[in-house]
Amino acid sequence: MSGTARTDMILIAFMQAQNCSNYVGSWRHPATIQDFTTAQHYQRIARILEEGKFHLAFFDDRLAMPELSDDFSLSVEHGIRTVKMDLIPLLTAMGMATRHLGLGGTYSTTYYEPFHVARVFATLDLMIGGRAAWNVVTSLNDHEAANFGRAEHLEHDHRYDRADEFIECVLGHWSTWADDALIVDPQSGRFADPKKVRRLDYKGRYYSSRGPFTVPRSPQGHPVIMQAGQSGRGKQFAARWGELIFSVYKNIDQAKATTREIKEEAARLGRDPNGIKIAPAVYMIPGETRQIAEDKKALIDGLARAPDAISLICEVTNFDLSRVPFDEPLTDEQMSKIGPTLGLKERVVREAGTNNPTPGQFVKYCRRGTIHEAPIFCGTPKDIADELEAWYVGGACDGFVLSATHRPGTYEDVARLVVPELQRRGLFHKDYAGTTLRENLGLPRPVVTHG
Amino acid sequence: MSGTARTDMILIAFMQAQNCSNYVGSWRHPATIQDFTTAQHYQRIARILEEGKFHLAFFDDRLAMPELSDDFSLSVEHGIRTVKMDLIPLLTAMGMATRHLGLGGTYSTTYYEPFHVARVFATLDLMIGGRAAWNVVTSLNDHEAANFGRAEHLEHDHRYDRADEFIECVLGHWSTWADDALIVDPQSGRFADPKKVRRLDYKGRYYSSRGPFTVPRSPQGHPVIMQAGQSGRGKQFAARWGELIFSVYKNIDQAKATTREIKEEAARLGRDPNGIKIAPAVYMIPGETRQIAEDKKALIDGLARAPDAISLICEVTNFDLSRVPFDEPLTDEQMSKIGPTLGLKERVVREAGTNNPTPGQFVKYCRRGTIHEAPIFCGTPKDIADELEAWYVGGACDGFVLSATHRPGTYEDVARLVVPELQRRGLFHKDYAGTTLRENLGLPRPVVTHG
Repeated sequence: MSGTARTDMILIAFMQAQNCSNYVGSWRHPATIQDFTTAQHYQRIARILEEGKFHLAFFDDRLAMPELSDDFSLSVEHGIRTVKMDLIPLLTAMGMATRHLGLGGTYSTTYYEPFHVARVFATLDLMIGGRAAWNVVTSLNDHEAANFGRAEHLEHDHRYDRADEFIECVLGHWSTWADDALIVDPQSGRFADPKKVRRLDYKGRYYSSRGPFTVPRSPQGHPVIMQAGQSGRGKQFAARWGELIFSVYKNIDQAKATTREIKEEAARLGRDPNGIKIAPAVYMIPGETRQIAEDKKALIDGLARAPDAISLICEVTNFDLSRVPFDEPLTDEQMSKIGPTLGLKERVVREAGTNNPTPGQFVKYCRRGTIHEAPIFCGTPKDIADELEAWYVGGACDGFVLSATHRPGTYEDVARLVVPELQRRGLFHKDYAGTTLRENLGLPRPVVTHG
Repeated sequence: MSGTARTDMILIAFMQAQNCSNYVGSWRHPATIQDFTTAQHYQRIARILEEGKFHLAFFDDRLAMPELSDDFSLSVEHGIRTVKMDLIPLLTAMGMATRHLGLGGTYSTTYYEPFHVARVFATLDLMIGGRAAWNVVTSLNDHEAANFGRAEHLEHDHRYDRADEFIECVLGHWSTWADDALIVDPQSGRFADPKKVRRLDYKGRYYSSRGPFTVPRSPQGHPVIMQAGQSGRGKQFAARWGELIFSVYKNIDQAKATTREIKEEAARLGRDPNGIKIAPAVYMIPGETRQIAEDKKALIDGLARAPDAISLICEVTNFDLSRVPFDEPLTDEQMSKIGPTLGLKERVVREAGTNNPTPGQFVKYCRRGTIHEAPIFCGTPKDIADELEAWYVGGACDGFVLSATHRPGTYEDVARLVVPELQRRGLFHKDYAGTTLRENLGLPRPVVTHG
């Protein structure tokens, strides 16, 4: 399956600023290093990723721990994504330990102000020399809302309308300083050219922000925009704004279809489809032999616990399945109360073949809290490279987001076993193309001249 | 003047996440290193401070560049605090380059949410091993308000009422995890003790936040609370909440009186006056000889420019003096429009001896934009140590906040010339007492057990 001329496969490490990877069971893995409250935990991973020439590490975020309708004890007892730290100190710490690795983080458009997000990510981008990415999310969870003094999360499409304004405002601020605005001549006393700094004066329906912005441009212009929309409205949003799209596909055929759909929508909006990179989540469990890999997978799979799934379903549906007997079908009324879902409710209804699935069927078919939420590539480095190559060469994606089964083990295994095989096949770069994330992703650098 | 038994003088470096120190002219100093948009700028200073055994570096912040009523070109042209970056990436970067230096930053209670501030500072505190401080400010500038989509800043006392709630909520979240809540036993699968994590359920008039909080306690419990209130209401706020008070005093007598006042107010509120440390701003210009010091001072003084003062007065008064002829007294109506002021208007009226000062008198007596806003200790290391000792031993303060005349020169000069003299006199520690900021400041570590 070798022979392609494309060597630009993108590898991204999916990170969490918490006690586990996105796989809750990861913290129960015997080889996990448990220093998740220290900078060294994240700096260690950053160094491993940079040795493996990963393009980017990016952090997901939620602004509340998962809980049932009114009980957080399961989360605390079992470590179900209990700890949620702010990403910016972690990203900065990782940036101080590396020179090329891109560093991205999720900040919600629902609970922050555009001026703040624009400023904090622009600052991060400067401090790490033009390697930052901002993953734009709209928050959906009632517990997050309660932490921020709101009664409940915003209705879905409305959230995206606000998010459109939010991102317009952030991108607007990032484009108010020309690339060559700074003069910094202490002798003449000229600091910057006032003709090359503009006031934004953004006035939207939901947001307004006047400016001038207070952070000059970074070596890559401004942070890369990441997006992870899965719903119809989310995909539209991604096609409009996303430069790097994080997605979760069940299989290669779904990936091909959706990737085509997003790139076509981007082209329809006047964007170059090559300026939008799509990377789905995958687990990789490489072993020196197939038997080793299978044994590792069995151990990893066995780390999931029943409360993980129930808590994580409640987190994205705002519906507490523990209140319904495990094998009793949900009523139509109960089904109607299952909230914004990352497409979860639809998937369970489809796969269970009924409009009234039981809690047991929810656990089984939504696969939350297990490694089966994303494709699992397990086997020798060659086996895994075959899978990655098939997806990549087949047009299913531009690269992959690596979910970790344990930390730092997954990152080490992939960097040491899989990456060299991809490099041998000419699919993956042997070294970084440049120092900025945009250079390394092959994304254009936005230019601002102000005439 | 030697012979005191106190060796606990606190030294703090006053920092700005911008193109200059708080002295605008600093960026025009010939020896200034102009890499202010890079992490190395701040890491270099952090290493210098740690070599000098400074207790803390702390960053001021504003959420807008200074401008006249509707014109930012002066700020951009002359570099008048034009660049304002977010502090968190800078503090983290400095933390990665040091092991003992405390790191504090200003986050406004006016434009952020308590859950966010609690989370970001708790995360920072973990990442730097218990060395963080949060400087609590209420914002007062109309341009900041406009950047956050508000019509104008909040009325003064009202801002402090909100700030009381804000800080109650933040401290509340920081006290919801017991110190020994974490178990992290992968074998049993027990992550933390649910009896040792509580929901906050804060419901105030302005803020509410439910919890549970998502960040465990740091090695010092939680970040140190800094405050800088100068007004009557601000001093009350400081006495209630502050653990480390940053102040600006004109002279030793004013310092003694105000320090006594704040400590008495703290005692009246049931606090241990030793648990509240007071450190006023000073400039230090040390030279190997008095002549060298005086020559350095003359050069530094000459770096100020007229537009600096006008812009910085407008920043804190929301009043544009450039619209009034330089030598024309302001009318009563104009005076009434001069807004929240850090006590600035009162000082100018008092020192000019008129209720209707001219713009020229404002520039002269408020001393904004010059090094004369704070006391200047200039001379040999012995001269400067004499001044510091007189203030410190005389009960005017517990330490000092060092304003920089240029970067990194001031920090180097003080670390290499003044600190050894203070150590010789037994006024200043020879090494750090511990690894956390609380240990090094002699502040108690708050304990949370949940029974």
